[in-house]
Amino acid sequence: MRAEIISVGTELLLGEIVDTNAAFLGRRLAELGVDVYHRQTVGDNQVRLVAALQLALSRSDLVLVSGGLGPTMDDITREALAEVLGDRLVLDEAAVRHLEAYFSRIGRAMTDNNRRQAYRPDGADFIANRRGTAPGILARYQGRTIVCMPGVPRELETMFEEEVVPRLFASTGDKRVIKSRMLLLTGLGESAAEAAIADIIKEQTNPTIASYAGLGEVRLRLTAAAAGAEEALALIEPLEARLRERLGDAVYGVDSDTLEGVVAEKLISRGLVLAVAESCTGGLVSHRLTNIPGSSAFFRQGLIVYSNEAKKELLDVPDELLEEYGAVSPQVAEAMARGVRLVGDADLGLAITGIAGPGGATPTKPVGLVYLALASDGDCIVEKHTFSGQREEVKYRASQAALNLLRLHLQ
Amino acid sequence: MRAEIISVGTELLLGEIVDTNAAFLGRRLAELGVDVYHRQTVGDNQVRLVAALQLALSRSDLVLVSGGLGPTMDDITREALAEVLGDRLVLDEAAVRHLEAYFSRIGRAMTDNNRRQAYRPDGADFIANRRGTAPGILARYQGRTIVCMPGVPRELETMFEEEVVPRLFASTGDKRVIKSRMLLLTGLGESAAEAAIADIIKEQTNPTIASYAGLGEVRLRLTAAAAGAEEALALIEPLEARLRERLGDAVYGVDSDTLEGVVAEKLISRGLVLAVAESCTGGLVSHRLTNIPGSSAFFRQGLIVYSNEAKKELLDVPDELLEEYGAVSPQVAEAMARGVRLVGDADLGLAITGIAGPGGATPTKPVGLVYLALASDGDCIVEKHTFSGQREEVKYRASQAALNLLRLHLQ
Repeated sequence: MRAEIISVGTELLLGEIVDTNAAFLGRRLAELGVDVYHRQTVGDNQVRLVAALQLALSRSDLVLVSGGLGPTMDDITREALAEVLGDRLVLDEAAVRHLEAYFSRIGRAMTDNNRRQAYRPDGADFIANRRGTAPGILARYQGRTIVCMPGVPRELETMFEEEVVPRLFASTGDKRVIKSRMLLLTGLGESAAEAAIADIIKEQTNPTIASYAGLGEVRLRLTAAAAGAEEALALIEPLEARLRERLGDAVYGVDSDTLEGVVAEKLISRGLVLAVAESCTGGLVSHRLTNIPGSSAFFRQGLIVYSNEAKKELLDVPDELLEEYGAVSPQVAEAMARGVRLVGDADLGLAITGIAGPGGATPTKPVGLVYLALASDGDCIVEKHTFSGQREEVKYRASQAALNLLRLHLQ
Repeated sequence: MRAEIISVGTELLLGEIVDTNAAFLGRRLAELGVDVYHRQTVGDNQVRLVAALQLALSRSDLVLVSGGLGPTMDDITREALAEVLGDRLVLDEAAVRHLEAYFSRIGRAMTDNNRRQAYRPDGADFIANRRGTAPGILARYQGRTIVCMPGVPRELETMFEEEVVPRLFASTGDKRVIKSRMLLLTGLGESAAEAAIADIIKEQTNPTIASYAGLGEVRLRLTAAAAGAEEALALIEPLEARLRERLGDAVYGVDSDTLEGVVAEKLISRGLVLAVAESCTGGLVSHRLTNIPGSSAFFRQGLIVYSNEAKKELLDVPDELLEEYGAVSPQVAEAMARGVRLVGDADLGLAITGIAGPGGATPTKPVGLVYLALASDGDCIVEKHTFSGQREEVKYRASQAALNLLRLHLQ
């Protein structure tokens, strides 16, 4: 089965609201094993909605329409649907009773324009709306199915789950199910990641592999279609294993994992305590780590040492290092990491110093230059990075690399 | 001029991401006085993208495409565009140099698949991408214009503003122009804000007023339509003045202002130095303040004191206060603010202590309870808040209230 989504509303075209209904329907249809190849968005205009419906009916078996069912003059989905079906609009008595009951329940008088919502094309069916006034409409046309739902997200979602899914997908039997898994990578660019697995991507058709570039990370989506959920997962697993073998340490998690969550889990399970000294990231690393519930178990303290004075006073960074090498140097990064570890009486000391920009660059130290250091008992690792982007991007990429340094050390 | 937006990406159809690019482009085109009647979304499929482009060219003067320009094999916008134009793909030397410079700047090797991004249809123009690797493409076809932009939102937004708008909308004539201004409020809920100005909203038709509830803030958008930009702004200004009078101190800025930016400006202009002690916000207040370029001028240091030990050792919070009142108390908040001000040798000391949850609540201290304190020369203000929401929401709302406390003090 091939489905198409039509979102109706001038406010969508004007960008006043983001179309979360289309995303919801796309996700649910994928889970139900229905292919979605097209989505259209049109304003509150009958001529254009009629054209959109005709186009959708020419290429899709199921057309899901959201919006345009309300009581006002610019709600034109009923009229457009009747025109496409070549059908007249009739008053649905069940819909009238539903509206009257709704208004009596909320203790308001039903205005005349609300009665508009009770009309439907003669041959179509009314769909109950448990959470609002506008009923939905279900119509059949030349072997195709059209479902119109209200645009208010919670009304649409409830109607879809409670009314549409049982009617259209009840007798699923042995339909195709789509499952996907996201592999999360860091420390490797999108093209490098893809180059490393190009041959695997090429030979794959089911599951497919798609890559997405995020800030300081890459996501690989493995999507498999099969007769059932277990079969789909069984297709994904060997491919995931192959990719993990090829990509090694770059894979930090799957699906809804976060890098800070992965690091937190390792720290907690090993009973280690961390102290953080941040210069250019300005608190972002600490903020991300303390987003994890229970972070007080491993997060001892974070010192945001923007000035040289703070580096000296709070972390005992020697004056000579600051003078000889400057605050953005491997030497100072190391002294900060060792210093915060001692001051915080922690097992691990993590330090970040760099130039987030736009100011602060020198002929030898460009914007984006960042040194990371991780001090543990007796030892200290120092890394140099050069990140691209604006100030906030540099901060984020630096926080990502710092958390990754921790992750790899704890591996 | 009539424009149409095509969003490319299977992840959009699957509902894995919400299409914020289309909303951004819709909003900006409305502001530029360009009508948008259609939007299409297709997956990473060349046949369907070609059909979508042909349909768009049959009914729209300007077609804006987002996505599908990356380095990987499922990025098919270049190929689809060339097919529609009946043009071959050629390597653009400027684009190659741009890519090489980009990779050398970030200190990474450019892989072969990145070179794919430098191809464009022979008769089309390359558009620079200042924030990423994928260049855009500008093509003309039978009196229509097609603009292809990368799907990464920050890359698309920068390219649209800096490259596309100047090329396509430089010489607007006397079309109807829509202008809007966003008033940014904090310290007041959405319904309280709306109740305060309900009569004004009711009588307004041009400009219109729409309110949006954000996390820890409310935004009011004033939108006016007029023959020209100046006329539209002249309609907005008296309304803005009326709203500001009614809402008073709750208005912290307009449009792209941020609360941290407003606070930073006040600190810099008054030459004041700040030190911050964070418990439950875990670095978020410091992170937000250090997002502002030049923050080293006012941000002395930030201490993230999660444990009682850290509060005692770093801030000299007396043991007796911690024992008698607990770490989440007005007394400890005050001691933290006074302590960090002294330790940091700063004009102002800001402290946040609270329970972000999900753990940590006691019978008398619920999740969401937060005390804020602001110490200045001899004086200290303490505020109590109870925030709703999950851990990250409580952290954000607390950071918002702390920055607002600073803002009102600096007023």
